[in-house]
Amino acid sequence: MSDTTGLRIVLASRPDGRPQPTDFRIEQVPVPTPGEGEVLLRVLYLSLDPYMRGRMSAAKSYAPPVEIDATMEGGTVAEVVASNDPAFKAGDLVLSHSGWQTHAVAKTQGLRKLNPDIAPISTALGVLGMPGFTAYSGLLTIGQPKAGETVVVAAATGPVGSAVGQIAKLKGCRTVGIAGGPDKVAFLTETLQFDVALDHRDPNFAAKLKEACPDGIDIYFENVGGAVWDAVMPLLNTYARIPVCGLIAFYNATSLPPGPDRMPLLMRTALTKSLTIRGFINAEFSSQLPDFFNDMSGWIRQGKVRYREDIVEGLENAPEAFIGMLEGKNFGKLLIKVG
Amino acid sequence: MSDTTGLRIVLASRPDGRPQPTDFRIEQVPVPTPGEGEVLLRVLYLSLDPYMRGRMSAAKSYAPPVEIDATMEGGTVAEVVASNDPAFKAGDLVLSHSGWQTHAVAKTQGLRKLNPDIAPISTALGVLGMPGFTAYSGLLTIGQPKAGETVVVAAATGPVGSAVGQIAKLKGCRTVGIAGGPDKVAFLTETLQFDVALDHRDPNFAAKLKEACPDGIDIYFENVGGAVWDAVMPLLNTYARIPVCGLIAFYNATSLPPGPDRMPLLMRTALTKSLTIRGFINAEFSSQLPDFFNDMSGWIRQGKVRYREDIVEGLENAPEAFIGMLEGKNFGKLLIKVG
Repeated sequence: MSDTTGLRIVLASRPDGRPQPTDFRIEQVPVPTPGEGEVLLRVLYLSLDPYMRGRMSAAKSYAPPVEIDATMEGGTVAEVVASNDPAFKAGDLVLSHSGWQTHAVAKTQGLRKLNPDIAPISTALGVLGMPGFTAYSGLLTIGQPKAGETVVVAAATGPVGSAVGQIAKLKGCRTVGIAGGPDKVAFLTETLQFDVALDHRDPNFAAKLKEACPDGIDIYFENVGGAVWDAVMPLLNTYARIPVCGLIAFYNATSLPPGPDRMPLLMRTALTKSLTIRGFINAEFSSQLPDFFNDMSGWIRQGKVRYREDIVEGLENAPEAFIGMLEGKNFGKLLIKVG
Repeated sequence: MSDTTGLRIVLASRPDGRPQPTDFRIEQVPVPTPGEGEVLLRVLYLSLDPYMRGRMSAAKSYAPPVEIDATMEGGTVAEVVASNDPAFKAGDLVLSHSGWQTHAVAKTQGLRKLNPDIAPISTALGVLGMPGFTAYSGLLTIGQPKAGETVVVAAATGPVGSAVGQIAKLKGCRTVGIAGGPDKVAFLTETLQFDVALDHRDPNFAAKLKEACPDGIDIYFENVGGAVWDAVMPLLNTYARIPVCGLIAFYNATSLPPGPDRMPLLMRTALTKSLTIRGFINAEFSSQLPDFFNDMSGWIRQGKVRYREDIVEGLENAPEAFIGMLEGKNFGKLLIKVG
C-alpha cells in the first residue's frame, strides 16, 4: 500500500450457509482520483453489521445484493485526503458509505461531517449511528415503551441491543437483557444497567426467562430469532409489541428448520394476544434523526447511555471478524480500524 | 316449550378437532324469573360466529372458555317479555349476550335497545354489530387503507369480510375477494362490488391471486389462515398491513401441520418487507363505536354497503349450522331464528 495503491475486499462468491474466508478476496487497487464535486477519502473505521450477510446473498430483500467481484458495502468513518468541493477540505472527518476498502472517491452530498470534540468519531458507526438509531426509532416508535413495562432485549451487548435496553430503562421500563457467555452477561447489569441479565446458552434459559418476567413481556426487541424467540413467545402479554430489526440466528441458514410448521402457532399467538409484530429498517424513520442525535448525544454526555466497541485492526482481518460476529464472537460494536 | 319452559343448548364435551353434534346437548329448562333491575328476554335471533369454537376449548385465549354443562355463549337479539326496570318495557327489542337459549334473564345495563325503523333488528348481530365493527375498526385503524392500494380479503362473503371489502372500496382501494364456490364468487363482484373475486378451491388459486394483484398486496385482512395466507405472503408489499382477527382454517386443528417450520420464514418476511402483523379483538377499539354506527348505517342507507344473511330456523339446528360454518357452508352472516 502506498499513496497510489489501496486495498479493497470484494465478494468472491455467494456463501452457502456460514460465510467462508474464501467468499471474500482482498485486492490491491490504484487509489482513485476524485472528479468534480467529489472528494478522495482515506477510510479510518469500517463498520461490520449483520445486515451485510443479507447483501452477500442473491435472495430478494429490502436492498439489492452486492454483486460478485464488487467491493463489500459498509458504513465508514473517513478522512478527506483531497477535495474538489470547496465545502470540504483535506483533514475533514466524515461519515460515508465507502465499504470494505482503504480509499474511496465519494460525492459530497452523501457525506456528513463529524466533529471529534462532540464524541469519538467511531461512534458515528455505533451508538450515534445506524445501530443506535435503529434502537431508538424501533423501540420508541414501534415498541412504545411505558413506565413499568417489561422489555426483553436479545444480543443485548451488541450496538443495537445495548441502546435498546438503556433507552427502555430511561423510559422507566424493567429491562431483561440476553447475551452469550459470562463476560457479556456480567456487562449487562454492571455497565449497561439492565435489571436482569440472562445467558441464552444456559440449558435452563427458557425457565430462567420466565422467572425473570413474572409480569410477562410487553416489548420484545427482535434482532436474533431462533431459540430466544421460542422462549419469548409464550411469555408475551396481550398488546405486546415486537419490533423486528434483525434475525441473526437465521442469516446463515440454508433451509428452514424441521417441523412441525409453527407458522400457524405464531399467527394464533398474534391473534389471541393482540400482538403487534412489525419489521422495520431504520431508514423508514429518518425524519426522527435530529431528535435522535439530540437525545442520544445528551444521554451519552450525561452517562445515561454507555457503549462498548470491539475494534479489530487491519482491513485484511474484516472477513474473519465478520464471520465471527455472525456467531456472536464480538463483544460490543464491531469496527475495523482501517487507517 | 311453553310460557314456563324454554330450551337451551349446553356444551356437553370439549371437541377433539371438528365439533360433533354430541359435543352439544339440548335441554328443557324452566323459564327464569327476573330479579330487581332485570328483564326476562325471549330470544329472537342468535348469532353464530367462528370465535365460539375457541370458547369450546380449554386452551388459553383472550376470553375464558365455556364450562362443560354451561349454556353456549353468543350474541342475541331479543324481545323484553317482563321487566323490573322502568327503562325497559315488554315488547322492547334489545341486543343482548344471552347465548344459545330461548329465554334469558339479563341485567339491563348490558342491553342496547334496537329501533327496527332504522335497520332490520338482525343486523345488530351482523353488519351493524360485532362482525361489522370488527371489519371497520380493524381495516381502518390497523389496515390504514389509502386510495389506490390493493386490499385482499378472505372469507369475503362472510359478515366481516364483506364489510372489509366494501369499506376498502369506499376508501378508494382495489379489492380482491376470496370465497369458496361459484355462487359466493359471483356474489363478490355482482353484489359486494369487489374488483376481483377468486375461489380458494381453484387448484390454480395461488397463481390467480398473483395475477389479480399485479401491484402486490398492501393490506391483507386475515380471518382465515391456511392456504390463503400461504398464497398471500409472497405477494405482500413493503409496509403491508395484516390485521388478524380470525384463523378459521386452524380452529379445528388438533396439532400443528408437518414441517418444515415456516415460523422463521414468516419473521424474515416481516423483516425484509417491514410488515405490520397485528392481532386484534374488536373490543380494543370500542371508543370508535359511535363513529361506526354513524358511518355504517349511512353507508347501508345509501346502498354503499350491502349485506347478506344466512338464517337457519330453530334453536335445535344451531349445532349443525355452527359445525357447517366452520367448514364454510354458510353463505352470509349465519343467524339462528330462535323466536
